[in-house]
Order: sequence, then C-alpha cells, then structure tokens
Amino acid sequence: MTALTPVPTAVDVPTGRPATVATPEPGDPRLERLALNQATVRPSTLIQAVDGCLRAGLPAIGLWREHVADLGLDRAVDLIHRSGLRVSSYCRGGFLTGHDRAKALDDNRRALDEAAALGAPALVMVLGGLPEDDRDLPGARSRAADAIGELVPYAAERGVRLALEPLHPMFCADRAVLSTLGQALDLAQDFPAETVGVTVDTYHVWWDPQVQAQIARAGHDGRIALFQVCDWVLPLPSDALLGRGMVGDGHIDVRSLLETVTAAGHTGDIEVEIFNADIWAADVDDVIATMARRHVEHVL
Amino acid sequence: MTALTPVPTAVDVPTGRPATVATPEPGDPRLERLALNQATVRPSTLIQAVDGCLRAGLPAIGLWREHVADLGLDRAVDLIHRSGLRVSSYCRGGFLTGHDRAKALDDNRRALDEAAALGAPALVMVLGGLPEDDRDLPGARSRAADAIGELVPYAAERGVRLALEPLHPMFCADRAVLSTLGQALDLAQDFPAETVGVTVDTYHVWWDPQVQAQIARAGHDGRIALFQVCDWVLPLPSDALLGRGMVGDGHIDVRSLLETVTAAGHTGDIEVEIFNADIWAADVDDVIATMARRHVEHVL
Repeated sequence: MTALTPVPTAVDVPTGRPATVATPEPGDPRLERLALNQATVRPSTLIQAVDGCLRAGLPAIGLWREHVADLGLDRAVDLIHRSGLRVSSYCRGGFLTGHDRAKALDDNRRALDEAAALGAPALVMVLGGLPEDDRDLPGARSRAADAIGELVPYAAERGVRLALEPLHPMFCADRAVLSTLGQALDLAQDFPAETVGVTVDTYHVWWDPQVQAQIARAGHDGRIALFQVCDWVLPLPSDALLGRGMVGDGHIDVRSLLETVTAAGHTGDIEVEIFNADIWAADVDDVIATMARRHVEHVL
Repeated sequence: MTALTPVPTAVDVPTGRPATVATPEPGDPRLERLALNQATVRPSTLIQAVDGCLRAGLPAIGLWREHVADLGLDRAVDLIHRSGLRVSSYCRGGFLTGHDRAKALDDNRRALDEAAALGAPALVMVLGGLPEDDRDLPGARSRAADAIGELVPYAAERGVRLALEPLHPMFCADRAVLSTLGQALDLAQDFPAETVGVTVDTYHVWWDPQVQAQIARAGHDGRIALFQVCDWVLPLPSDALLGRGMVGDGHIDVRSLLETVTAAGHTGDIEVEIFNADIWAADVDDVIATMARRHVEHVL
C-alpha cells in the first residue's frame, strides 16, 4: 500500500479553485517566518486580523496606522503584546515630496513614535509622487531625500528603521518617486544601515533587470529591512493600486526572489501584502489559509 | 503701441481648453523635425493620416503595419513617395518571447521587407511579454535576445535598423520584457550600431533614475534610432495601454528629455505617438494642430 497524503478540501482565494496542497497547521515550522500584512485583509479590524493570525498559527503581523488608530494606540500596543505576535513592519510613513514639509515631517515623527510603541522594527516609507501639475521629478526626489535626512536622528533615537520602499514605476507620478532598489540604496547609503534600510516587495521590483544585483548589494550593505510578497496578475484593474495577486496566481517567480534575498542574508519575516478587492471581499480565515498554502507551495 | 500677437482661437485636443499659443503654419521651421506616428490617429487610414500631415506642414510620419496592409504595400509605397513625407519609423516588429520562434522570425522578416520598401530607417521592436502561466522572466529575455541576433543579418542586408524599445515596466508581463534603456543597450551592444539601435520613448523611460546616464550612453554608442514623445497623465485608464497623454497635459518633462537626447547627438525626428481613446475620437486636423502647438510650447 502507498501512504495516504491528506486530501485538501479547501478552496483558494480569490480564484475559487480547489487547493492543491494541504493547509499547514498551527505549529508547522514552515510557517515560522510567514507574516500577514494588514493590507491583505483591509476590511478587518486589528482585533480580527490578530485573531486570524492566531487561529492559523502565523507568528507575525505587519500593522497599518489606520487600523491602529481605529482601535487606539494604547489598546493596540496591549493587544499585540498579549497576542505574542511579532510586528514585522509598520505601514506607513513617507509622502515627503509635497511642499508642506513641516506638516509631513510632523506626521512621520508621530508614525515613528507609534512604531516604537508597537515594537515595530521598521517604518515602511512610501516617498510620495509629484505635486499636481508638476513635472520636476528630480526636484521631488531631492525634497524626499532631504526629508529622510531630517527624520534619521528621530528614527535612530526611537530604534525604528526607515524602510525605504521603491514602488513600481507605474506609481512614480502619483505615489512614489522612488522607483528602483538601486535608487533606494543610493539614497540610503548616506545614512547608517541600522537606521535606513530598504523594503524589497516582489510586486514592485520583479521586472527590474538589476534586481538580483541590487538585492545582493542591499544584503552586502546590511540594508534589507523587510521582504514583502505578492504576485503580478493580468489584466491590470481599472484602479492600478488594486492589481496585486495571491502568490502563485501570476507572473512573479517569488521563490527565486526569496532565494536571492536569502543569499543576501535576509532571515526575517516574509510578509504577504496584497491590495485586491476580491481578496478583501473574502473570509479572513480563507485568505490566511490560502496564503499559508501558497507559502509552502510557491515560496519555500 | 505694442505689437499685436496672433490671438489663438483653436481648442486643444483632448482637453477642450482654448489653445495658449498660435498654431505653427506650414513652412514654419519649428515643425521641421515633428513627426506624426500613425498610432496617434489610429482610426484614420494611411491616406487620411498623410493628408493630415501635408495640410499641417508636418514633414514626417511613423507608419504602422496594419494601416499599410489595409492600403496594400505597393500603394502605400507609392503614396509615401508622392507625398514627399519622410518615414520616421515603421511599427512594429518583435513579440519574440513566445515558443513559436520560427513563426515570429518569419513575421519579423516580412516587417523588415516592408520597412525597406517604404524607406523606413528603423523597425520599432517591442520584444513581447511572458507566455501565459509563465514565470521565467530571464528565460523570456534570453529567447528575445537570441531572436534579435537571428534577425540582425537580415536587417543589415535591407538597410533597416532594429530599434529596440524598452517599454514601461508595467508592460513587462504582457508586452515587453525589455524594461529599461540600460537593458536595451546591454542587448544592443553585441551588434553593430548601424543595425541595432534603441527607441527612446518619453512615456516608457521618464521615471528611470538612470535615464539621463543611459541616454548619454546611447548617444555615445551611436544607438539612438528614434525619439518618441507623449505624456504621463493621471489617473491610469482601465486599459493601461491607452493612458498616454498629449505632451503638456501630464507629468513628463519632455523638454528636458529632448535636451538630453540632443546633447547625446540625436538630430532626427521627434515623433509623437499617443495611444488615447479621447484623442482617437477627435478630428485629425485638431489632433495634429494640438501636437504642433504643444511641440513649440513644451518641447522645443
């Protein structure tokens, strides 16, 4: 007789297709680095997201300011502490390219205070796009770099790392003038590695012909603050922000990128961050279970 | 008395706003490098597009295979010859990443034959995306590079240059695994510059932190085969292919990019290529007149 393998009966989110592997149970060592970013279950409260992680046996969560504010910072700090979950990241700071510099800096200092209170090792930084009717891309990049420099001492005092996130170039005009990992590392290198690192998000960097070399450089310089995963699915939706897919549903070779960050020395969490209306409409437990299955099938 | 300046009465396409400068008349030396790419007036036939160029005093046109085929190659050759228009480019070849290599190469050889017959100096090459359910980006890039190598002798015999076009990274999965100018130049450098050049399209390269350096490199290597312009407008439409804007309506500093290609030695045509449903719905003469006004206001 051949050994029986578990028959998966679960259904993947959002495809609705039967799962092709069994869902890892809580305690499965393959889950030990898997983190849920709250954006993946955006309609859920922080309490619901934490509960979902605990039920599924996930050890870590990436938090968002909006959800923390909804619960209140003190209650959020207490909830996270009691849950035993690691905080993989805090999302997010940035938006430093506008002309009201003082206001933007104040807001980022508050975000750093919150991150410190929550025990988040890093504040994800999305630098901001071009002001309306503005064509001065070098100017916006320069303003953002200056503002990062201003925030560095404050971040260092609080023990929170600024995790500069290059966003896919399709967001250059409206969300982030930081477009490649190489550019992020060029900006970071003026500051101590323990205070300024980079976020490597598969969605944003997968297309880059230099991605392997720049991840190696980031590892060499000790700059990999966070590794986030999701997939590139076609077609792009009408709101390009919501086009991200569950790992395994699209064109990104996530496993290969994990191998590259691992070779570069990254041993931290693998955080799943997916902006997708169909995933947001699904049950939280089904979303997390699909994430866990895809993690063992397509990432590890 | 102060001198009277001409009062513009025209309306810009597609904004519907009054023009802010007078439309350059046929014979105006500022039009001497302005080329209409047929994609900008896609619903028009080749005859209509040629007539539009002649009425407006444009000296050059970028042709598309579909429109040439509709008229028939021999008649198109005769029309272009009699019009006196320069052919700035022929669009397009490529799509070399699929698994039916022989068929793709045959089609590209036919495109090169057509380009030679039409007197086009360059065939614009869009390399193709990933096959469905495929995650092997390095593999697709390698197949495309091999296929370019196969086409080089054929292109050289016909005196038509392969103008490798990096497409914006948002098209990496579905249309072009060639994503940056640097990557295009890396591919081109194995071949003679007179046979393999690059297309610099503002829409595709404007976000690139290396764009200035890579344009300089392209100029130094004698590889700038074609300079195309249009603008990045927000929001992206539901079909991301159709998101391009009239120069001056968006976030790209086209003038600065022209200065960079000029400093790099490019003296050829400045070809306007815009995929935009609102522009396609407008009158051809209004489209070309807006192009001409934006050319003197935002490019030269």
